[in-house]
Amino acid sequence: MRRNNSIPEIIRIPFQEMKEIFLGLLIKHGLTDLKAETCAKVFAENSLDGVYTHGVNRFARFIKYIKRGYININAEPEKVHSAGAIEQWDGNLGPGPLNALSCTDRAIQIAKEYGMGCIALANTNHWMRAGYYGWKAAKRGFVFIGWTNTIKNMPAWGAIDPRLGNNPLVLAVPFGLEAIVLDMAMSQFSYGSVESHEMKKQLLTVAGGYDKNGKLTTDPSQILESKRFLPMGYWKGAGLSLLLDILAAVLSGGWSTMQISKNNAEYGASQVFIAVDISLLNNYSSIADSVNEIIKDYSASLPESEKQKVLYPGQRVLITRKENMELGIPVDKEIWEEVNSLM
Amino acid sequence: MRRNNSIPEIIRIPFQEMKEIFLGLLIKHGLTDLKAETCAKVFAENSLDGVYTHGVNRFARFIKYIKRGYININAEPEKVHSAGAIEQWDGNLGPGPLNALSCTDRAIQIAKEYGMGCIALANTNHWMRAGYYGWKAAKRGFVFIGWTNTIKNMPAWGAIDPRLGNNPLVLAVPFGLEAIVLDMAMSQFSYGSVESHEMKKQLLTVAGGYDKNGKLTTDPSQILESKRFLPMGYWKGAGLSLLLDILAAVLSGGWSTMQISKNNAEYGASQVFIAVDISLLNNYSSIADSVNEIIKDYSASLPESEKQKVLYPGQRVLITRKENMELGIPVDKEIWEEVNSLM
Repeated sequence: MRRNNSIPEIIRIPFQEMKEIFLGLLIKHGLTDLKAETCAKVFAENSLDGVYTHGVNRFARFIKYIKRGYININAEPEKVHSAGAIEQWDGNLGPGPLNALSCTDRAIQIAKEYGMGCIALANTNHWMRAGYYGWKAAKRGFVFIGWTNTIKNMPAWGAIDPRLGNNPLVLAVPFGLEAIVLDMAMSQFSYGSVESHEMKKQLLTVAGGYDKNGKLTTDPSQILESKRFLPMGYWKGAGLSLLLDILAAVLSGGWSTMQISKNNAEYGASQVFIAVDISLLNNYSSIADSVNEIIKDYSASLPESEKQKVLYPGQRVLITRKENMELGIPVDKEIWEEVNSLM
Repeated sequence: MRRNNSIPEIIRIPFQEMKEIFLGLLIKHGLTDLKAETCAKVFAENSLDGVYTHGVNRFARFIKYIKRGYININAEPEKVHSAGAIEQWDGNLGPGPLNALSCTDRAIQIAKEYGMGCIALANTNHWMRAGYYGWKAAKRGFVFIGWTNTIKNMPAWGAIDPRLGNNPLVLAVPFGLEAIVLDMAMSQFSYGSVESHEMKKQLLTVAGGYDKNGKLTTDPSQILESKRFLPMGYWKGAGLSLLLDILAAVLSGGWSTMQISKNNAEYGASQVFIAVDISLLNNYSSIADSVNEIIKDYSASLPESEKQKVLYPGQRVLITRKENMELGIPVDKEIWEEVNSLM
């Protein structure tokens, strides 16, 4: 997290260097080589893909949560119950990305057996970036649907006090050697995005929350002051957030947003991982063509303006990934110094 | 559909009377007694629940589609392929509500066996109201997730020509003797809602589309003129619409929005029905309490104003259902005359 409000100085760190530094720090803070390697990869790849808020910008907090004992680095997820194609697992408050990767793998294994597999995971920690697990599964040839609940950070529609999480949802489908991945939180803008607009003194492109008088506003500082973030699509995002929370808690037997929010830090989330093995479907041989055709039509949309490009979900990630691999990953110098100070 | 633009005269028709009239008309137009009974129930119950656009207001079009052969009243859905917990079915262009009810039932049967069941249905017709199948499944004790694709009626984000459907999505969970049911299309407002605001000369509460100069507007007549409806949550609803379409087409092997839109009427949709048998879960005995607790907290939200109530998805349906059962179902007199003229 940045310590002051000045315009950040951006430096570029090569992907491998960032990953090595994460790796060293994770080993120093007690993770086994294997677990550290996997966690370092998740944080570095999220940054490479442009999701800095759930990569390098959140790494120091991850270490802090380990130190405070919110994250148990020695815990392994374990199966609590199986009902066939759906299994319930306990994350034992282990590192969120490791639990989430294990459950993505397990959902895939079940899908290979039953066509579709679902893991509902209780008692886990922040998985960082929802899309990571979508990309993982889709690049292995599986359709993926997953979501998590979070602490409360958004009011219900027509209400002023936050009781809903922004509960990110991911839907992913294989696309050539890559994937189409929709990764979206239920708030119109993330906290990180509003904060970043505020730092750059930029207005949001559309209303992202309320001012202190309860009027919708595009002014990031007003929203940070009122703490009233807007659900995407108003009542629609609020409703979807509530249902995703209920389903995560019901299916896993874990905590709801309300229960997570009783603590002074965000731990103990509930998550759902659904995979479908499309190679077992009747139309498998024509699926790639079918997706290509849909994307071809979508991409032929008439843009609003000449400079505007109509991108499919995940397309910008590919552009950013390439650019960051070539030029290095852009990082706020102050944040990078904080990460390095953990050594 | 209304024939002119005047303010409608609303009459109230008792639920049983409406259902009987639908039943008679469906039998007259060739449906077997059993199929007519089920279809009449869907149209009447959708109207009873306040979803008039997919109840009484759409009944005449349903009959028209039967006459034109878009809907094959004698077709039965059939299983094409099974991969265990996921099955692919062909709707054979039968009546949408009948196909959807069959597939909801079948998803429930599979869920009883495997914990979770999924039916992907190709080659079906408009299922009318997404929520109907969510209520059905949840009142039988199952978690339900389902969606359909539609003809194109909404542009991608940053584009001006419609290439996306509004692809309604439903998530439902049992709640006491009733259910919590989120039923939402990917556009901020439905066509019917924009049209109804225009008739009443009312502005929309938030922007629902664009004027002819490409500016967001709350003016329903401008939106009906430009035909540019706004995706809910801007880029988010557009992205979710695309993914729901891809998944429906990939999983079922059926048509995508693009393919459906090549015809001069909306038929041949693809749909997905997922059910989870929560009675097979480890935490079954505590699920009702868990949902109660979440809803209790949600309902304790501080409302923006004293007259505002913070309702959970499906709560208004219960209020409307009770009111319409007592007072009769409100119908535009002109629409009711059109329905009766089909006899």
